Amino acid sequence: MLKTPTIVLNVKTYDEAIWQKALEIARLMDKISKETYLSLAIAVQATDISLCAKNVSIPVFAEHIDPIKPGSHTGWTLPEAVKEAGAIGTLINHSEHRLKLADIDICITRAKELKLDHIVCSNNIATSKAIAAFSPNFIAVEPPELIGGDISVTTADPEIVSGSVDAVKIIDKKVKVLCGAGVKNGKDVAKAVELGSDGVLLASGIVKAKDKEKVIRDLASGL
Amino acid sequence: MLKTPTIVLNVKTYDEAIWQKALEIARLMDKISKETYLSLAIAVQATDISLCAKNVSIPVFAEHIDPIKPGSHTGWTLPEAVKEAGAIGTLINHSEHRLKLADIDICITRAKELKLDHIVCSNNIATSKAIAAFSPNFIAVEPPELIGGDISVTTADPEIVSGSVDAVKIIDKKVKVLCGAGVKNGKDVAKAVELGSDGVLLASGIVKAKDKEKVIRDLASGL
Amino acid sequence: MLKTPTIVLNVKTYDEAIWQKALEIARLMDKISKETYLSLAIAVQATDISLCAKNVSIPVFAEHIDPIKPGSHTGWTLPEAVKEAGAIGTLINHSEHRLKLADIDICITRAKELKLDHIVCSNNIATSKAIAAFSPNFIAVEPPELIGGDISVTTADPEIVSGSVDAVKIIDKKVKVLCGAGVKNGKDVAKAVELGSDGVLLASGIVKAKDKEKVIRDLASGL
Amino acid sequence: MLKTPTIVLNVKTYDEAIWQKALEIARLMDKISKETYLSLAIAVQATDISLCAKNVSIPVFAEHIDPIKPGSHTGWTLPEAVKEAGAIGTLINHSEHRLKLADIDICITRAKELKLDHIVCSNNIATSKAIAAFSPNFIAVEPPELIGGDISVTTADPEIVSGSVDAVKIIDKKVKVLCGAGVKNGKDVAKAVELGSDGVLLASGIVKAKDKEKVIRDLASGL
Repeated sequence: MLKTPTIVLNVKTYDEAIWQKALEIARLMDKISKETYLSLAIAVQATDISLCAKNVSIPVFAEHIDPIKPGSHTGWTLPEAVKEAGAIGTLINHSEHRLKLADIDICITRAKELKLDHIVCSNNIATSKAIAAFSPNFIAVEPPELIGGDISVTTADPEIVSGSVDAVKIIDKKVKVLCGAGVKNGKDVAKAVELGSDGVLLASGIVKAKDKEKVIRDLASGL
Repeated sequence: MLKTPTIVLNVKTYDEAIWQKALEIARLMDKISKETYLSLAIAVQATDISLCAKNVSIPVFAEHIDPIKPGSHTGWTLPEAVKEAGAIGTLINHSEHRLKLADIDICITRAKELKLDHIVCSNNIATSKAIAAFSPNFIAVEPPELIGGDISVTTADPEIVSGSVDAVKIIDKKVKVLCGAGVKNGKDVAKAVELGSDGVLLASGIVKAKDKEKVIRDLASGL
Repeated sequence: MLKTPTIVLNVKTYDEAIWQKALEIARLMDKISKETYLSLAIAVQATDISLCAKNVSIPVFAEHIDPIKPGSHTGWTLPEAVKEAGAIGTLINHSEHRLKLADIDICITRAKELKLDHIVCSNNIATSKAIAAFSPNFIAVEPPELIGGDISVTTADPEIVSGSVDAVKIIDKKVKVLCGAGVKNGKDVAKAVELGSDGVLLASGIVKAKDKEKVIRDLASGL
Repeated sequence: MLKTPTIVLNVKTYDEAIWQKALEIARLMDKISKETYLSLAIAVQATDISLCAKNVSIPVFAEHIDPIKPGSHTGWTLPEAVKEAGAIGTLINHSEHRLKLADIDICITRAKELKLDHIVCSNNIATSKAIAAFSPNFIAVEPPELIGGDISVTTADPEIVSGSVDAVKIIDKKVKVLCGAGVKNGKDVAKAVELGSDGVLLASGIVKAKDKEKVIRDLASGL
């Protein structure tokens, strides 16, 4: 399983992270991970999983899986397919890709069956606690109103991080908790860990940065 | 643009068509296409586009695109991403992945912007006619109740094929019409062409066949 | 069928138009319709249809129907149910309640079966044309970016109105076309009719007005 | 709050329970409730809430609310609107109307704000436990595969009932648990209570019965 503390980058469908550009970012993270022995991971579009997985050693995640088994599901994202393409895990229920409760249950079950690491996203303490009932590997709490913004969740709403950690651990101690939204630098990462989380999930902080290497190194310094 | 008449295989998320197994089917079609000079194409899962596109000469399609531009759309299928991975076209609005009307409009517009061929699926004559208003490359009419079944649409409901062709051509003569559902052999394909269509879209007929090569050759004989 | 030219008010789920407050607005429109012999109609929440329909003579519409028949569809809006409650028609595919293409087809078919008037909303010329393929009673074109705004579609984008009228009439002359978004006064209504439409669909222009009676009278003066 | 043990009837959108027919069923339940002093409640379509609430004394529920506040939400079900129409509570996340996790959170919060009783449906022990994290009034566990069937959940899968009760109570003792699916007679109801639940949620067992009064009396005998 993904080692913690960790920094997981979700490249979304940003223009700066399609295909070769996704690979370049993955390579940067791979290089820094090797140098620092820190746990860095990247979630990329389904189309780009195999390219990244083949060329880097850091864990490559899918950004999403659908609650399906092999069969007649044209155009949906099959858990088996992301695994075959090289993903070792997946995000589930990202703020931009919310799932029905019963489908979160199915996605987590499917991820466990296939031994895919899974980071299930929540939007507040109550939903973090609810998701903990499914005993996933990871829960990543991200207040939607802070996503893509300039203020880190660790500054804007530290209670949501510590509160989620507490709520989740009461339900199931083994579930690890990440946090995200607005995370930009090593100080934010350090604060996230200090608040009891096992790391951060972030996106624009790296993808939209001019000097990505510098930003990744700074973020990593906070672990 | 995809040459017609054509046979387009949609491998869906069938167990028999994930990753290397998708490539094997693509290679079979590639071989037969080269031998016969017939237009054969394959639509595969997003994860498998690059693998197939790199290794075969026949057109590789995505099974779906979402109505989005580059940005914050975690886990959705970006038109740019399927193109970068090697797809030359995409299915849109498949019966198993229906879209809202306004989103079909956006997907077709995005496909045109990116010069992606696009086969927009409909379920009856009225929806074929409605889709024709957007002047897509292709419309593929498939009665949902016949999909995956044993009786070809060309036998069970030939009027839906000829009726769709007529309705579409009244709106826009340049739009080509495919048909699908239950298509199994060369006779079905020949009948599809005889009914005025430009070819077929099919799935289980090939993917679930024991001797796939034999089935593809038989289907191709009907063009 | 709803007489034209017409003004159709959609009260949405505004705070100013729940239950008795919806009825008060309906009564105002009823009074003005009786005085002026003009065609005014109101679309209200499902919960409020019977209250309004029992107490006013103007046509009461549902704001939405779902693409279903009687059966196991807990919490969805059954066409039969809105009719039994007193609605004589319904909106379909409103900008805030978009439907899949195949479901628009089913909703229109169901409305016709039950002899419910139906106003199917579109967002541009292309979707207006697509919807015309189903030969509905009415199409109401509303550019989403102008809905709830201060500038009337008839001023901001008159071509979308005249263009939709033209596109729809080419497909089916019997389909009537309304327009909406930002409509605020009699001049906007007069312009809508001048552009070839059969009236307007509006919401906040009346519901959010301090002196609703004055606004309705002004709007009606434009017919 | 709804007294327990209770029998809650969800009439769905069945042909046998539209408008006057919904009222007739509500009146039967009302009569039997008055005679027996037992807690019986009915959930009806949005269109039919006011008719039923005005004419019976038993609690009338909505079948669904959407996760919205008053505003621009054409055709969606506003919690305020079902309350104004006379509902004292609502179902949330019924198996036929599943919601996203974040939206279940919002619906429960909105129901609490408006003091609407709320029965949140789950499909297994894990989802029951997850929903308990939101401390709703009621959770109703219903295995989807048994809904509308001939075998009661209390016979086919008693562990899902007792297991849900246990899982929910560990999270929050105040949350009451109902069960449903295939419940047909007083014996099923008695077994439900015996398994630790606070009553049943049922639909076709009453709505589709020829002699509804007899069935309701039999069911009530199990409380």
